[in-house]
Amino acid sequence: MPAIEIIRSLTEMTNWSARHRRKGNSISFVPTMGFLHEGHLSLMKEGKRQADKLVISIFVNPTQFGPGEDFDSYPSDLDRDFKLAEDIGADVVFTPTKADFYPQGFDTFINQEKLPNHLCGLSRAGHFQGVMTIVAKLFNVVNPDIAVFGEKDFQQLAIIRRMVKDLNFNIRIIGHPTVRETDGLARSSRNSKLTSDQRITALSLFASLEKAQNTLKSEETSAAVLIGNAADFISSHPGTEIDYIKICDPDTLDDVTIIDRPVVMAMAVKVGTTRLIDNMILNPDK
Amino acid sequence: MPAIEIIRSLTEMTNWSARHRRKGNSISFVPTMGFLHEGHLSLMKEGKRQADKLVISIFVNPTQFGPGEDFDSYPSDLDRDFKLAEDIGADVVFTPTKADFYPQGFDTFINQEKLPNHLCGLSRAGHFQGVMTIVAKLFNVVNPDIAVFGEKDFQQLAIIRRMVKDLNFNIRIIGHPTVRETDGLARSSRNSKLTSDQRITALSLFASLEKAQNTLKSEETSAAVLIGNAADFISSHPGTEIDYIKICDPDTLDDVTIIDRPVVMAMAVKVGTTRLIDNMILNPDK
Repeated sequence: MPAIEIIRSLTEMTNWSARHRRKGNSISFVPTMGFLHEGHLSLMKEGKRQADKLVISIFVNPTQFGPGEDFDSYPSDLDRDFKLAEDIGADVVFTPTKADFYPQGFDTFINQEKLPNHLCGLSRAGHFQGVMTIVAKLFNVVNPDIAVFGEKDFQQLAIIRRMVKDLNFNIRIIGHPTVRETDGLARSSRNSKLTSDQRITALSLFASLEKAQNTLKSEETSAAVLIGNAADFISSHPGTEIDYIKICDPDTLDDVTIIDRPVVMAMAVKVGTTRLIDNMILNPDK
Repeated sequence: MPAIEIIRSLTEMTNWSARHRRKGNSISFVPTMGFLHEGHLSLMKEGKRQADKLVISIFVNPTQFGPGEDFDSYPSDLDRDFKLAEDIGADVVFTPTKADFYPQGFDTFINQEKLPNHLCGLSRAGHFQGVMTIVAKLFNVVNPDIAVFGEKDFQQLAIIRRMVKDLNFNIRIIGHPTVRETDGLARSSRNSKLTSDQRITALSLFASLEKAQNTLKSEETSAAVLIGNAADFISSHPGTEIDYIKICDPDTLDDVTIIDRPVVMAMAVKVGTTRLIDNMILNPDK
């Protein structure tokens, strides 16, 4: 197995990709903020399956964190990340610096009007502007054929798909199913911040989604009822604070009232000080 | 001389570029709104000098026109444009359709906070958002190594340079000097709308810029004085309406008070109903 390449320089990354494209190699890309877990590894495996070469990036992007959010305390373990990426067979770990990516005078941002004004976008002003901007930057530097994103960040995936289509990026976006612990908790770098009690409480997110699917199967099609049930269930656990629980159209993210087609149920809940998200497609015909 | 290719389809354009890149050909690009004049041809010649293949686009971009602006009456003569592009030796004229470029649900825009809030941006709300967005789209479809823009649209050039740097487009931007009629009028597709009297009046823009450089040479370094002189001179011509006359830093476009280094003097003036722009670098050491 050839040693993995660690690339910090933007120019070097661009040159690496150009070299491999000239050789006829296809390139897949998985952007991450590091502190890799099974969820990332699963995206990376998918990326490897889809192309000749796999590039992953590790960059904790300051512009997608709001005031009071956990930018400064975002968990990190680069050496472990490099090892995990190498084990999975990634070809490059791209770790740009903040100074290179946001030089003095930086002033260009990408925005959408509609999709960010739902779900997480409502409580995280500017978050998706930061996400779109960094993803476009990474796309331009890495120049991949394919990029893989997790369905766990459902809104992010919808927004990236829209951006890629609207700005004509010549990149195929692959959405990859949420990877869960055996007990159902969605994998997240932020899970590492949970105490063991909070870890148990956190299971209420996935449990409430499964309950919703079961209730729907018993022909309760009112979104308000399913949301109310989930809110009651999660709130019955100590130390939880619901940011939102929504049932919405998977493409537009507009609220749905009566569930007569597949919809997405999405939620963000603080467990202690750790904000967790989860979602599930609810299907009345399942 | 091989016949010029007219490409309407986005996919076909992207494939054309990919094919030529694989062959090792470099590609230069000149985006236009058509109704080509000597100014465009000069950009195209520069493009040809700089790369193996030259692509020009013709697309009157609706999102950069505001309400009441001249989108519907923007002059057009595609057959003449194709002939001119062919004569200059362009390889492709790319003419995407509005429906392909702005499909239903389009919702992604590129913005800057600083540079657009000067000069033309102040009276043309949303104009530069439209320009940045369409240029990014064209860059992604055409995928050039080099793009050539005229210095006549000084603010546009500054904004595009900022965008390319900030979003890490791997494209070299070349600014090309304003092409003028023999009497000094800056070439513009909109000149075709001037009556012969207005055509003479329009000369006052360039004349006022030259006067400013001469006055500066005589050691009058106050921007306010130079601007006042220019405003008086232009206003003395019937049917003129000044939108702005500014003297500013060429990089930040911030106003300059005392001219102790090269600055840009820029103006927008309506002659009848036709809005014209012009600019000149004023240099105290010239």
